[in-house]
Amino acid sequence: MAVLTEPGEFELVERERPEPEPEEALVRPRAVGICGSDLHYYEHGRNGGTDIGDGHVLGHEAAGEVVAVGSEVTGLSIGDRVAIEPGVPCRRCEHCRRGDYHLCPDVTFLGSPPDDGALAEYVAWPADYLYELPESVSTREGALCEPLSVGIHAARRGEVSTGDSVLITGAGPIGRCALEAVRAAGATDVVVSDVVPSKLDAAAAAGADRTIDAREESVADAVSAYTDGRGVDTVIEASGAEPAIGSTVDAVRRGAVVVLVGMPVDGAVEFDALDIINREVDVRGSYRYANTYPTAVELLADGRVDVDGLVDFEAPVSEVQTAFERALEPEVVKGVVTL
Amino acid sequence: MAVLTEPGEFELVERERPEPEPEEALVRPRAVGICGSDLHYYEHGRNGGTDIGDGHVLGHEAAGEVVAVGSEVTGLSIGDRVAIEPGVPCRRCEHCRRGDYHLCPDVTFLGSPPDDGALAEYVAWPADYLYELPESVSTREGALCEPLSVGIHAARRGEVSTGDSVLITGAGPIGRCALEAVRAAGATDVVVSDVVPSKLDAAAAAGADRTIDAREESVADAVSAYTDGRGVDTVIEASGAEPAIGSTVDAVRRGAVVVLVGMPVDGAVEFDALDIINREVDVRGSYRYANTYPTAVELLADGRVDVDGLVDFEAPVSEVQTAFERALEPEVVKGVVTL
Amino acid sequence: MAVLTEPGEFELVERERPEPEPEEALVRPRAVGICGSDLHYYEHGRNGGTDIGDGHVLGHEAAGEVVAVGSEVTGLSIGDRVAIEPGVPCRRCEHCRRGDYHLCPDVTFLGSPPDDGALAEYVAWPADYLYELPESVSTREGALCEPLSVGIHAARRGEVSTGDSVLITGAGPIGRCALEAVRAAGATDVVVSDVVPSKLDAAAAAGADRTIDAREESVADAVSAYTDGRGVDTVIEASGAEPAIGSTVDAVRRGAVVVLVGMPVDGAVEFDALDIINREVDVRGSYRYANTYPTAVELLADGRVDVDGLVDFEAPVSEVQTAFERALEPEVVKGVVTL
Amino acid sequence: MAVLTEPGEFELVERERPEPEPEEALVRPRAVGICGSDLHYYEHGRNGGTDIGDGHVLGHEAAGEVVAVGSEVTGLSIGDRVAIEPGVPCRRCEHCRRGDYHLCPDVTFLGSPPDDGALAEYVAWPADYLYELPESVSTREGALCEPLSVGIHAARRGEVSTGDSVLITGAGPIGRCALEAVRAAGATDVVVSDVVPSKLDAAAAAGADRTIDAREESVADAVSAYTDGRGVDTVIEASGAEPAIGSTVDAVRRGAVVVLVGMPVDGAVEFDALDIINREVDVRGSYRYANTYPTAVELLADGRVDVDGLVDFEAPVSEVQTAFERALEPEVVKGVVTL
Repeated sequence: MAVLTEPGEFELVERERPEPEPEEALVRPRAVGICGSDLHYYEHGRNGGTDIGDGHVLGHEAAGEVVAVGSEVTGLSIGDRVAIEPGVPCRRCEHCRRGDYHLCPDVTFLGSPPDDGALAEYVAWPADYLYELPESVSTREGALCEPLSVGIHAARRGEVSTGDSVLITGAGPIGRCALEAVRAAGATDVVVSDVVPSKLDAAAAAGADRTIDAREESVADAVSAYTDGRGVDTVIEASGAEPAIGSTVDAVRRGAVVVLVGMPVDGAVEFDALDIINREVDVRGSYRYANTYPTAVELLADGRVDVDGLVDFEAPVSEVQTAFERALEPEVVKGVVTL
Repeated sequence: MAVLTEPGEFELVERERPEPEPEEALVRPRAVGICGSDLHYYEHGRNGGTDIGDGHVLGHEAAGEVVAVGSEVTGLSIGDRVAIEPGVPCRRCEHCRRGDYHLCPDVTFLGSPPDDGALAEYVAWPADYLYELPESVSTREGALCEPLSVGIHAARRGEVSTGDSVLITGAGPIGRCALEAVRAAGATDVVVSDVVPSKLDAAAAAGADRTIDAREESVADAVSAYTDGRGVDTVIEASGAEPAIGSTVDAVRRGAVVVLVGMPVDGAVEFDALDIINREVDVRGSYRYANTYPTAVELLADGRVDVDGLVDFEAPVSEVQTAFERALEPEVVKGVVTL
Repeated sequence: MAVLTEPGEFELVERERPEPEPEEALVRPRAVGICGSDLHYYEHGRNGGTDIGDGHVLGHEAAGEVVAVGSEVTGLSIGDRVAIEPGVPCRRCEHCRRGDYHLCPDVTFLGSPPDDGALAEYVAWPADYLYELPESVSTREGALCEPLSVGIHAARRGEVSTGDSVLITGAGPIGRCALEAVRAAGATDVVVSDVVPSKLDAAAAAGADRTIDAREESVADAVSAYTDGRGVDTVIEASGAEPAIGSTVDAVRRGAVVVLVGMPVDGAVEFDALDIINREVDVRGSYRYANTYPTAVELLADGRVDVDGLVDFEAPVSEVQTAFERALEPEVVKGVVTL
Repeated sequence: MAVLTEPGEFELVERERPEPEPEEALVRPRAVGICGSDLHYYEHGRNGGTDIGDGHVLGHEAAGEVVAVGSEVTGLSIGDRVAIEPGVPCRRCEHCRRGDYHLCPDVTFLGSPPDDGALAEYVAWPADYLYELPESVSTREGALCEPLSVGIHAARRGEVSTGDSVLITGAGPIGRCALEAVRAAGATDVVVSDVVPSKLDAAAAAGADRTIDAREESVADAVSAYTDGRGVDTVIEASGAEPAIGSTVDAVRRGAVVVLVGMPVDGAVEFDALDIINREVDVRGSYRYANTYPTAVELLADGRVDVDGLVDFEAPVSEVQTAFERALEPEVVKGVVTL
């Protein structure tokens, strides 16, 4: 397994093979996506309030192969390829019982300290948070069900449906996954903004109807022109850039929904509350996801979404450090580590 | 215009060109789809409680060209091609004000006696119930926004979304439009049943994942096998066949939605109420549509749905009688009259 | 504990005090409501597909006192009075994870064979399915959170809100609890029908604005007259009488919701499907409840609902057989056994 | 009629009695509430982007008596007492057709320049925006259906339902009407904050379970203490005070809704976007209302809400200037002018 011992420093070590609990399966990860939060741990040794301590195993965008199943597990067999849903909730709190298990305050999250992640030989995981991949879905696609889930959840929070127009601010992995998700949900006009031309080109290639370089034109003005002054039905804010967040409200029609999913470094953002009231806009946070993995697998199996297009490179775990360095480059959308 | 003077008998006559009211435009219909209700009037001279009286002009699936605009009309010009939404509500009742204008008890419906229809030189119509067609949408597709709207509304009533499995019973025009609508909304597993093999073949060609000949196998059993015993998320009942209607509840998972859209001849249908309760199924009527035309035009413009595939033949209005005769054949899904 | 050894025959026996599992608490039941399903077991030794076998302990409308807590339990202490939610789901299936845990196919249900019920000295139960009762809520009210939950869930399924008109067919315990729930949700016109005059009188006393004796007048006609021909916004069918079920659709406005909650003996019910379609009615099953207990306790604590008014008599467990006999009388709405 | 000729200056003049259009009725206003926006025009001669020009008639919280009906009007007769819904939309735009007619960009609003208001002998108004008052609802209550509608709409935007906990920031007329609306919808724990002790006392008398003087304690801390650290299900921000707006997010549980309805003077408000995302909060604007008047009348008729308790004083139109001066006092919640 790849242990991040200090900022910028991985060490490859071996640990014993664990035994799965009765309701767990033991998975051998085969593909692990590198996420922005992984990179933050890699660079700074910490993310928000948590740090890597004496050494930490990253990786939560993961899929692999079942190598053992607990005594109570049905529906999974040794040899099955599975996507791993990384957040397992308490199953008991009001949020879990209402189906909003992503809001559970007591989640075990794969690769979030102190819980080790998937850049490892083995992950023992509750079987109901594993999703068998059909033949038509690759293991790498299985790993990328995680960012795709973020996009699906954001699209749901935005109530995106057939014929809708959507602005996605930010063309990184979350923006790209949101693009896939809103297209799958029937959005017919999708505008994507970013500040990196190569990412805008990639978004256009992936189906964006209009791209906006936010350094060169006002996003709100460009959207207004594109929509004949009406504004879009939904914004999915996937950049996490404070100025982009506050100005999302300018780009929407009356009664629209703005979904905030990109995490700003500093949370303080100025909104025009009068505009929110007078135009009756909803500004909705979107946090991780719940009940998205089966949808993600179905959409991939049916060829309705593409996540391979996000991947800039793949590297074996033996080169994990190089892979993380490369993933830090601004043009890179997604790197994947294979094991 | 083609006047249905008595069952089976059209007469082509000319009437004066009307003047549009201030908020109307005058449309010259160019394409008119033949609907099952048109055929019912053609065969029997009546449909439900209304009859053709001394002669009636049919046609409500219509698109054409704007030839004059009333003094208050903005946003439409002479020469624009438009789809005509045939039902114009009172705009004042509780249903209209809530946005459910299709439930308005006081609708003027194009081609429904005593209101003449679109198989005519001119239709004067409220401008806000006309929808400009972009270059990428043909006039014939504009006419077929009407049955497509029925499909879109049924999909909305069924809350169909990404990754869902759907059973559509009936592969006639409504079933086919529902198929297009649910695919556009992200359904990934769509099963279609019918009793006419050629219609099932056409549904398969249009993207149905599995077809069921209801004369040869039990629909519920076939769905159960296809879904590993789980049942589908949604049924859209588009056959209007009484036995099919009652047994829809057998094909769904717990907590699912059954949408009834196909009109049975006699309304009396037996349901298993215990099953509806114990498995908490919703059985929802779906009547016409509201707020679907903009969506239909967007989906067509974006190439996300296909309605040309429904059309078996096209005939000029001079041959309207032959066209109606042909449309009565059981294999025919949709005929279109051009003017 | 009161063991139903054969139809009509209770035997009082003692069993050992069980130990709670780590996440359970041990409850000493103090009040247990007698439900229609309990009576069915009492009379016939069976209910639907299950039977009492060699002897069975009934009782699922229950509240009591915590006498021990498992090692992992937080938030409950010995001496707390608690309502017991009788259905504990698997926490793992798609329904549980979506928050529809009442649809879980793998529920353990207190008092449903083979699981013994609350007419016993002890019930060991998962702590998250126990709800502490504040001082202002009596233990008997805690027991009646169960039928109240059925009413709350039905009102939610009916989307009843402020200013709505509601027809409740059936003035037994479920109809009465639905009456409480819809009033709490803001319904302003509530009509109740039944065939037992004393139950109608009780419903009127409990706040029904109009009562209908279904043996003496047509419910649909009476509702039509009461609503000036419009029909109600929602029906909650709580009688389980087949003719009542089928005719609910006649009593509603266009676009309304009919909730089926009363269980018919034989499920086959004839509906007018044309009416369901043309008037776009939703017919929705309502099965048990999910996420209602906290609401029930809050409403009781705030004095917003009354369940004491349902109770016709209370009897000690030593007289359980007499109590069940009395509960079988048609005028009785609810009997409660105290322990 | 009372013409506001310049800031602080009313002039009483007579104008000719207008004729109602065919679909209008002519109403003689009898009670007109004084709203904050009226006061703003009174003090400054302008409000937002509009001004009173050469003289303007205020008043949009109004009810009166029908004195004439247009030729097409059914359902209203001379002598009927009616509440006037002041905003009449275009009935044709996408918002109107979807049922969100309050978002129509082309609303005629009673008393909003250039449209004269209800402090007049006559108002000619579309009959479908007039609501007959039953005997049990006074004309003054009819006038106060307007602010009550703002409260009902805010409660709907907040999806407040039975058993919910709600924080209302601001105990002026909107906060008070929100309090009535959320109680009617079944909220069981309602906390109200303000900075004027007399308003807090009045809110407590009207049913607030807890009041917070925001000058003396932190609202978020007080809510946290009151809810044992959980936070409320919904906030209705009715103060329009910028610091209160931004900090609403601190007072809610995960997955909660914050409704913004109080208009800030300057719209710029800082929110913690990280908190909105991580706790998945919805911040929703709430603008005026749609489809609330029938609900408001029903709730008043049923005695489920009280608006008389808002009224501090009543004055005849002959003393309109004194009335407006008095309404400017900070302790006053609502003044009513009678005609």
